[in-house]
Amino acid sequence: MSEIITAAETAAWLKSHDNFLILTHRRPDGDTVGCAGALAEGLRLAGKNTYTLYNPDITPRYERFIEEFRAADGYQPDHVITVDTASASLLPKNAEKYAGSISLCIDHHPSNSSYAEFTCLDETSASCGEIIYEILLALSGSISAKSADCLYVAVTTDTGCFSFANTTANSLRVASCLIGAGAQHRKINKLLFRTKSRSRAMIESMMFSTLEYHYDGAVAISTITLGMMEKANAEEDDLDDISSLPGSVDGVVAGITIREMTSPQDCKISVRTMPPVNAHAISSRFGGGGHALAAGFSASRSALEIKDAIVEAIADFLPQAQ
Amino acid sequence: MSEIITAAETAAWLKSHDNFLILTHRRPDGDTVGCAGALAEGLRLAGKNTYTLYNPDITPRYERFIEEFRAADGYQPDHVITVDTASASLLPKNAEKYAGSISLCIDHHPSNSSYAEFTCLDETSASCGEIIYEILLALSGSISAKSADCLYVAVTTDTGCFSFANTTANSLRVASCLIGAGAQHRKINKLLFRTKSRSRAMIESMMFSTLEYHYDGAVAISTITLGMMEKANAEEDDLDDISSLPGSVDGVVAGITIREMTSPQDCKISVRTMPPVNAHAISSRFGGGGHALAAGFSASRSALEIKDAIVEAIADFLPQAQ
Repeated sequence: MSEIITAAETAAWLKSHDNFLILTHRRPDGDTVGCAGALAEGLRLAGKNTYTLYNPDITPRYERFIEEFRAADGYQPDHVITVDTASASLLPKNAEKYAGSISLCIDHHPSNSSYAEFTCLDETSASCGEIIYEILLALSGSISAKSADCLYVAVTTDTGCFSFANTTANSLRVASCLIGAGAQHRKINKLLFRTKSRSRAMIESMMFSTLEYHYDGAVAISTITLGMMEKANAEEDDLDDISSLPGSVDGVVAGITIREMTSPQDCKISVRTMPPVNAHAISSRFGGGGHALAAGFSASRSALEIKDAIVEAIADFLPQAQ
Repeated sequence: MSEIITAAETAAWLKSHDNFLILTHRRPDGDTVGCAGALAEGLRLAGKNTYTLYNPDITPRYERFIEEFRAADGYQPDHVITVDTASASLLPKNAEKYAGSISLCIDHHPSNSSYAEFTCLDETSASCGEIIYEILLALSGSISAKSADCLYVAVTTDTGCFSFANTTANSLRVASCLIGAGAQHRKINKLLFRTKSRSRAMIESMMFSTLEYHYDGAVAISTITLGMMEKANAEEDDLDDISSLPGSVDGVVAGITIREMTSPQDCKISVRTMPPVNAHAISSRFGGGGHALAAGFSASRSALEIKDAIVEAIADFLPQAQ
């Protein structure tokens, strides 16, 4: 078991050690990347030799915030730190060699598996960035403009620019202080929240135009076919959070997205619901699972067959049936 | 000329007067409605007889925040207050009789025309709600949960849930305090920012699918025809901020929305740009105008003719031409 430590204790530990390598999780998002960038910058300003491990999955949108800290091949750290990573199994392939020897894990996931020697965990934090903010303040009493940029990316990514239900008064307080510390919030908001790729715009348009409503609009089902992906020239990066689209329509309590993966007979289904409808229960009926409001399953059937099966089964899970 | 007073002076003035009527501006948005609701609630808690004038343009989305304060016919106020209203000409028809006798105007528009006896103006404030927040604190030292809800609506409306370029550290600080005071931010975010009507979803889908790109994607032009409005069963309320859509696509520096109004030969054109492209300059070429990044004009021509004219003219205003 890992020893749980506070932000202040984490800062004290960092002060008394040196030669760090910071790891981000697989398919890195703005929270893990922003945390790594801010912590690397903060530790360097505190005189510590610090690098981040290159993440092979990183997209250009995020790489700009972290590339200057990238470790050269052969760097031998004394201490390895993970940020926003609930389990060592979530590390990218090139970080697996460190999986058994993580000194410090800084995280906000309730599911954290206690894999590091020390864990700084705050499950009430909407983003890991808010924890790094406290650690950097305890470390040096101030936040540099570069760290502020990185942490603003972290906080806004995990809170959907403060619109998601996990947003707290503290998320907004920290963000306000980050702007005070020089975060370029206008530029970052535009980059992350007010710009979509042309492919994304096309995919969204096609999804909405083919959206099917059932049960008086309580259920909305969209399909992303391989043909749509090709027509929109879309890649994985263009589909970020796309499963939330059907549920964004007024009155929908269960939003289903069926996506053709390698072939029209190989589909991944995302189920997003509003309370009291249980996405996990619906997905379990089809051999899948997940969280109460976000779950999914896979099926080796056509999108049309899956749609029919869902429309039939889902009646059991809607409020009027309960 | 109006006497400019601070938030503290405004609170002192409110304390020493009574029997208020609060007016909102025409086509009321969340800022004016939220300010009116929060101020009415705060003044009532301070023991003042306070009502808001019914706004005939109000939509159900906003009415719920203010309807309990609605003045009965025949209410005779001693003092009339406007919120978020830059000029008396922006008052709704049923408020015009008060236009010449406004005691107090609380506003954040640089274009404020000094029409009231006293004006509490802060042009650096992203929303009028942030000013009302300071006034209520000065008035009673605390914010009720109901006022907090109203002010959260105000601040988030004008900052696009903190994603617009006008958002400041203070907007986030105030919002953080409002959540601390009991604002139901999850419910309000879902209502205002994470739900769209079925008609809105259809209109967006049709706009994106008919979006035309010019000049290597620097210019994007969309058209909203009367036929589209009918097909989507869309109303005015479904088109809120819709002109920002073309400009949300990566690479677009000038986003144009042509909308057929009463007939296919009666169009309203919205021009939204990114610096250094000047929306006002482009619109002026066609007899319109506005702000540097958001402007528009009207034309008694078909959408197709207008589109051709814009595509031809706009080259003069793009960076490579300058």
